[in-house]
Amino acid sequence: MPVHSGLLRLATEGDGQIVDLTSGVASVVRQSGAREGVATVFAVGSTLAVTTMEYEPGGVQDLTRALERLLPAEGDYAHNRLNHDTNSHAHQRASIVGPSESIPVVGGELALGTWQQVVLLDFDDRPRQRSVHVHVIS
Amino acid sequence: MPVHSGLLRLATEGDGQIVDLTSGVASVVRQSGAREGVATVFAVGSTLAVTTMEYEPGGVQDLTRALERLLPAEGDYAHNRLNHDTNSHAHQRASIVGPSESIPVVGGELALGTWQQVVLLDFDDRPRQRSVHVHVIS
Amino acid sequence: MPVHSGLLRLATEGDGQIVDLTSGVASVVRQSGAREGVATVFAVGSTLAVTTMEYEPGGVQDLTRALERLLPAEGDYAHNRLNHDTNSHAHQRASIVGPSESIPVVGGELALGTWQQVVLLDFDDRPRQRSVHVHVIS
Repeated sequence: MPVHSGLLRLATEGDGQIVDLTSGVASVVRQSGAREGVATVFAVGSTLAVTTMEYEPGGVQDLTRALERLLPAEGDYAHNRLNHDTNSHAHQRASIVGPSESIPVVGGELALGTWQQVVLLDFDDRPRQRSVHVHVIS
Repeated sequence: MPVHSGLLRLATEGDGQIVDLTSGVASVVRQSGAREGVATVFAVGSTLAVTTMEYEPGGVQDLTRALERLLPAEGDYAHNRLNHDTNSHAHQRASIVGPSESIPVVGGELALGTWQQVVLLDFDDRPRQRSVHVHVIS
Repeated sequence: MPVHSGLLRLATEGDGQIVDLTSGVASVVRQSGAREGVATVFAVGSTLAVTTMEYEPGGVQDLTRALERLLPAEGDYAHNRLNHDTNSHAHQRASIVGPSESIPVVGGELALGTWQQVVLLDFDDRPRQRSVHVHVIS
């Protein structure tokens, strides 16, 4: 069977919280038995995103601040006005960072760098229950 | 056959127009007959991008304005000077948002959130005929 | 065998250097013998990214300057303070642009536009030896 799928479910705090997904993604890859392939990681929802980073407190703080500086939570946003909502910034950040990354599997392992983790960024302004799909093709 | 491919052709207005591709992508997935797999959506060209968002008028307006504020159409751009062109901003935006997203297929359906659509952003400064490839691996 | 993998190794100068990967990626696709499929390009490391662009001197200069303006090298960054490091800006840029793109293969060729190249952006502030994985699924 060439496609093995896994679903990561997690409770997030929102407000730009960055969660390290690496062990969860690696677990799906292990269960797939794939030696060579590609793992696609996809965040379900329009106020969160997936990327990679060196997951350490300084980098987490800097990335959070950069996104707040570039796409501030406060602003005269049409999404908030038209929908009586408060999270337009979360939508903007999610679309620019993007919901998916595809990571090669080499020798049964994710081909990440030593200081490179797969992360979920939850930009919404409240805690959420989130789903991340991991599909391994091999 | 593990790869099913589809080609979406569309006329865009440019100037950052955001087009909802979800039904077109879903149609390719349906035709593929895939139950579990991954759909890769790829925009052909260097002045457009693919991402996901909640496709509603307020969010469309906010994302358009955010990209114009961060990467303005007007500027002293080398691309425009050297090539007698006017769309350097479109190239910059396209590279940062990126041309591809890969979306899991679960039970024959795209694993999108309820308020999450696949969109094409055409940043060029004139109407264009565009091609978007959708490849479904299952 | 549905997965064909290749590894591009290259020496980069850092400081935002943009390298055209297209011929290397196309070479892996050719070796794979794939007619229809998807090529996933993934940059190993947390200070570099993959995207597409029209690879010409003006566009390279404009994209480099835009990223320096939005995410400047100089700044009061926690990553640099806590880790006695100097490349927080490189991490921020890498996470926002993202490490992977997936490009359809059509008729044995990458489905890129005429003026669209696959590029590596190395944001680190020193020369590095870099690895880029190319996995072709067909």
